[in-house]
Amino acid sequence: MGEQDAQRQVEQWGIFELALEAQTPGNPFMDVDFGARFVHGNRAVEAAGFYDGDGVFRVRFMPEAQGEWRYETRSDCEALNGRRGSFMCAAPGEGNHGPVRVADTFHFRYADGTPYYQVGTTCYAWVHQGDELEGQTLATLAAAPFNKLRMCVFPKRYAFNRNEPVYYPFERSGGGWDFTRFEPAFWRHLERRVGQLRDLGIEADIILFHPYDSGAWGFDRMDAASDDRYLRYVVARLAAYRNVWWSMANEWDFMGAKTEADFDRFFRIVQESDPYGHLRSVHNGATWYDHGKPWVTHLSVQGGTDGLRALRERHGKPVVVDECCYEGDIEHGWGNITARELVRRFWTGTVGGGYVGHGETYLHPEDVLWWSKGGVLHGESPPRIAFLRKILEEGPAHGFDPLDWRPSWDMWGAGKGDAYLLFYFAFRQPRRYFLGLPEGREYRVDLIDTWGMTVTPVEGTFSGHAEVPLPGRSDMAVRLRKVT
Amino acid sequence: MGEQDAQRQVEQWGIFELALEAQTPGNPFMDVDFGARFVHGNRAVEAAGFYDGDGVFRVRFMPEAQGEWRYETRSDCEALNGRRGSFMCAAPGEGNHGPVRVADTFHFRYADGTPYYQVGTTCYAWVHQGDELEGQTLATLAAAPFNKLRMCVFPKRYAFNRNEPVYYPFERSGGGWDFTRFEPAFWRHLERRVGQLRDLGIEADIILFHPYDSGAWGFDRMDAASDDRYLRYVVARLAAYRNVWWSMANEWDFMGAKTEADFDRFFRIVQESDPYGHLRSVHNGATWYDHGKPWVTHLSVQGGTDGLRALRERHGKPVVVDECCYEGDIEHGWGNITARELVRRFWTGTVGGGYVGHGETYLHPEDVLWWSKGGVLHGESPPRIAFLRKILEEGPAHGFDPLDWRPSWDMWGAGKGDAYLLFYFAFRQPRRYFLGLPEGREYRVDLIDTWGMTVTPVEGTFSGHAEVPLPGRSDMAVRLRKVT
Repeated sequence: MGEQDAQRQVEQWGIFELALEAQTPGNPFMDVDFGARFVHGNRAVEAAGFYDGDGVFRVRFMPEAQGEWRYETRSDCEALNGRRGSFMCAAPGEGNHGPVRVADTFHFRYADGTPYYQVGTTCYAWVHQGDELEGQTLATLAAAPFNKLRMCVFPKRYAFNRNEPVYYPFERSGGGWDFTRFEPAFWRHLERRVGQLRDLGIEADIILFHPYDSGAWGFDRMDAASDDRYLRYVVARLAAYRNVWWSMANEWDFMGAKTEADFDRFFRIVQESDPYGHLRSVHNGATWYDHGKPWVTHLSVQGGTDGLRALRERHGKPVVVDECCYEGDIEHGWGNITARELVRRFWTGTVGGGYVGHGETYLHPEDVLWWSKGGVLHGESPPRIAFLRKILEEGPAHGFDPLDWRPSWDMWGAGKGDAYLLFYFAFRQPRRYFLGLPEGREYRVDLIDTWGMTVTPVEGTFSGHAEVPLPGRSDMAVRLRKVT
Repeated sequence: MGEQDAQRQVEQWGIFELALEAQTPGNPFMDVDFGARFVHGNRAVEAAGFYDGDGVFRVRFMPEAQGEWRYETRSDCEALNGRRGSFMCAAPGEGNHGPVRVADTFHFRYADGTPYYQVGTTCYAWVHQGDELEGQTLATLAAAPFNKLRMCVFPKRYAFNRNEPVYYPFERSGGGWDFTRFEPAFWRHLERRVGQLRDLGIEADIILFHPYDSGAWGFDRMDAASDDRYLRYVVARLAAYRNVWWSMANEWDFMGAKTEADFDRFFRIVQESDPYGHLRSVHNGATWYDHGKPWVTHLSVQGGTDGLRALRERHGKPVVVDECCYEGDIEHGWGNITARELVRRFWTGTVGGGYVGHGETYLHPEDVLWWSKGGVLHGESPPRIAFLRKILEEGPAHGFDPLDWRPSWDMWGAGKGDAYLLFYFAFRQPRRYFLGLPEGREYRVDLIDTWGMTVTPVEGTFSGHAEVPLPGRSDMAVRLRKVT
């Protein structure tokens, strides 16, 4: 193979891939430095390559600008060095909005300017379950409201997770692993799944480390050199996928063999290796990582969904509560809240100016719980989360911000300026509500049943000290949109 | 009249009353000092008397010991001074357990040793609504689960409360009031209602001041001398009712004309004037009074029902969350939570080692809201509160204490030693739960549906690391009682 295998045309935020064959002495994962420099006008981007087994080296690149890109490889191996070529970057195809970025401090937007309202879910170990279940998971996701999926690179050993994965990230060595040799089949499989999520319009929140190893494989306690090599390899393989987000770890603080300094280093390695600046965060157990550190792009939180207004203001970054307990019926408190409670947490978090994540943990005869293995959804929250997503999409383009004013001590609202106002009542069931509306404005009012999934316009317009009639049941929201 | 009008026999914790007639110059409310000393063996109790209009002075006394009591009046008015007599104090009648006292630091008990599990409600201004509605309120209370009622002495002007009372506590004077002259009809009416509550087994939590006057009568901004005289008059009239508790104020901090020092003084006046040491507390708005002060017998709180364990330990006193938002559908956040949410707060508070109060605020065409005016109950929480009261009564005699151990991070339990354990799941819906039970003990298990009001015994006994099967729905509790 040679540069003739490279594509001649790539869509913007698509993947350009160059494959080169070379016979190299020693361990090609360790002993060969390989990469390429991509140039567009006066913009140059360095992308690291990686060894993919069978004598093939690859370098992947995600062009962020349309037009001609030229490249030249660099390597300490003669056969891989100085190879030149070019390709054309065309307009993005349908459904391709580019990677998600932070926008307006507290929100997200695709690179093409399309708003992105994070509505995530969690299938930690779904890529380790075999083709049948993984296919079912993809089919479920295709019909579900979620636009982000949290997923681990490494397999998982934990409650309800006793099965061995199909693929392993490293080559076997005696009774253990050779952390200096990656197993290409594992990585090709992982990439395929990430690409399938991309094609469904789902961001892949890639969890790079996790503490759920239980001594099964030891991927949670590799030495620092192996950790760092692993990170660079993941980034070299996956960064060109536009739908990738990086999560340094799940429950980072439960990883007994790692320190906060290790995580600082992980963040910096990922930040330096990823030419595209994909979103970066880390998810907490009991102790939070300092989200104020400059390499953290947004908060990824396990915690409550109250008070997100204060949280986002403290850090000046978007807040995603990825884990606020899951809908389910298992014995663990993090996985047995009702659908109604989860939907309330979604709404509370949204009105607080944050974004919330879903998970589902219903007991299953074969331990196929969505939260870890995927499969099908059994719960009652997903349609309500779809309904909330629709409300978000019908709302202000840049997302919800908590209002500066409160109609009363117990009530926060969200909106944007005075054009759009949204109030959420949770377990409150008023039959009427008084709102002091901004001077000189008139509003149309919709009653939103967040559980019943209905939107009922109220006749007439409202202004000044307005009495809004409500149905006297819980889980309602009121939406006001400015007419004049 | 004379001492011949005194009773010859009074039950323990009943009321002995002596009425004396005297023509006195000036204002008999102000110018006459009158009281009596009651002696039983070597115990002597001083009780203040009061002027009741029409030339009649009364002194009331609640004997706390059986046997012969002798008394002698004292007054600076000759006709009221030095009158002697005696009466026999007999055993208490049925349903008479004496006044409620603090017991075991965090709990309550009647004077005769019967446990008292506070299950309160609130009808602030019920005694100001006229006989018809007041009669209906009493009929409702007779069939309701509540054993304490929060009620104001003064009438109320506030949202849903625009009506004038039937009686006023002071004589009219021009366009205002003569705070030096009490209106006996008002007080006799109040006493009658307190006595009717007593006969229903309901403690009367008498709220001495409140901020809901709105300039209607000015009872919230009397001068200090009038405040103090008023307090002594209330105590002289009511302290002999065994079911009286003293609440210095509702939302004390919203009383703009009073300072914290005023409340310190109110507490001390009540403490010094009341010969029986009835329970004393004060209820907060936004700012809490320091419940650590020695004259506060228990916490009377407006607030959440989470974390009562820490709260009670901080103060070393019982905690009553009198106001944790009311079941209802009004526009105010303090009065529009669902019945389910209120019942959850009752259970959460109970498992935390505290006691909780009810209130109801459903809109009504004539503004007859239970929380203020009484009438009938419309809500769904009272039968569930009755059910909780039954669970309490079936529990350890001295009430629930939070367990020192937790089965998991998300779960607190209550009980007493290792003989009785109670766990509450609120919005969690596990289908099974694992409990590490105390070594060498065997338990019977009941599943309690706190909303469905059922108790379902689980077959067999449980010990060690026990798996308890649950129905996979919310609002469940699990009760374990030791067999061996």
